[in-house]
Amino acid sequence: MKELHSFAALVDSFAKLPGIGAKTAERLAYAVMDMDEADAMQFSSAIKDVKHNIHHCHNCGLYCEGDLCEVCHDPERDHSVCIVLSYPKDVLAFERLEGFHGVYHVLGGVISPSKGILAADLSIDPLLKRIQEEGIKEIIIGTNPTMEGEMTALFLSKLLKEQNVSVSRLAYGLPMGASLDYADALTLTKALEGRKAL
Amino acid sequence: MKELHSFAALVDSFAKLPGIGAKTAERLAYAVMDMDEADAMQFSSAIKDVKHNIHHCHNCGLYCEGDLCEVCHDPERDHSVCIVLSYPKDVLAFERLEGFHGVYHVLGGVISPSKGILAADLSIDPLLKRIQEEGIKEIIIGTNPTMEGEMTALFLSKLLKEQNVSVSRLAYGLPMGASLDYADALTLTKALEGRKAL
Repeated sequence: MKELHSFAALVDSFAKLPGIGAKTAERLAYAVMDMDEADAMQFSSAIKDVKHNIHHCHNCGLYCEGDLCEVCHDPERDHSVCIVLSYPKDVLAFERLEGFHGVYHVLGGVISPSKGILAADLSIDPLLKRIQEEGIKEIIIGTNPTMEGEMTALFLSKLLKEQNVSVSRLAYGLPMGASLDYADALTLTKALEGRKAL
Repeated sequence: MKELHSFAALVDSFAKLPGIGAKTAERLAYAVMDMDEADAMQFSSAIKDVKHNIHHCHNCGLYCEGDLCEVCHDPERDHSVCIVLSYPKDVLAFERLEGFHGVYHVLGGVISPSKGILAADLSIDPLLKRIQEEGIKEIIIGTNPTMEGEMTALFLSKLLKEQNVSVSRLAYGLPMGASLDYADALTLTKALEGRKAL
């Protein structure tokens, strides 16, 4: 099937997506060939539309179609509590919870000297401005539990000490429902360090 | 993120692909948002191109961009040996082998009374015509090892007895490299039935 240029191009495009290997890309490209004409055309336009219609919220950095995202727009949310995230997609996990009704701020990455990403490259000044202007009282740092996420959380927590806000970090420990056998050493160490009296 | 219509539309499109659940569809749609503009536009066009440029080979039913597929076109292949497949994508597995240099014929499905697919709905007459016109001497039936694939193979083998061709079916048995522990009962029964003297 090497000579099917259109097919090969589509396989290449699928293979650029994360977690999609060569064989899966081939399988998905075949599925597109077998799709209804209408479904395929809708798929094609959906990709174009996503790139053309969706951009970052001017206030918090989440993805949105208008000027402000639905969260910043919503008067029923608690604008005094703010979760700071690295990437817009991290919001999904929190929005699936029933429990959180505050707002978000997206840094747009993590501090990573090895990749040349410094604090100045992240959306930190806009966060400080929001604390002043929107009266944010509590910041929950929700960067990933990785080396770089930690570094970013530490940097932020130091910086935010000068502000009149309480700052916290998501807890580490064993994921619920997991088995101790499968916990890695670092998670287990964190679970031990963070143990709570009963 | 419910209010991002373009995003939701793209998630829906991804979720129509086989093996892609709701969460993966969301993850892939995010990846498209994070793609370069150029890559995304190429992805969008690749889908359109595949639907517009690729169709079935007039002779054997494989996918191709011209009138005849590369296999039917190729004078170096052995046009006297033909593997009969249910679907065009089944050809991939055989083309990955170094060993097979014959040609193919795609039935376009399997006989399935429960789904209302009868022998007359499959590309069987064109196969008979090819046997006459192209001088096919050997037919290898390569329908899937499922109930319907079996039924189709049986039907074909009876029909082809009247023709001057040798007809065979792919062998059943344990997949190479697999462990006996994991073999299902049916496969094991087939492996027993098909045992070979050493």
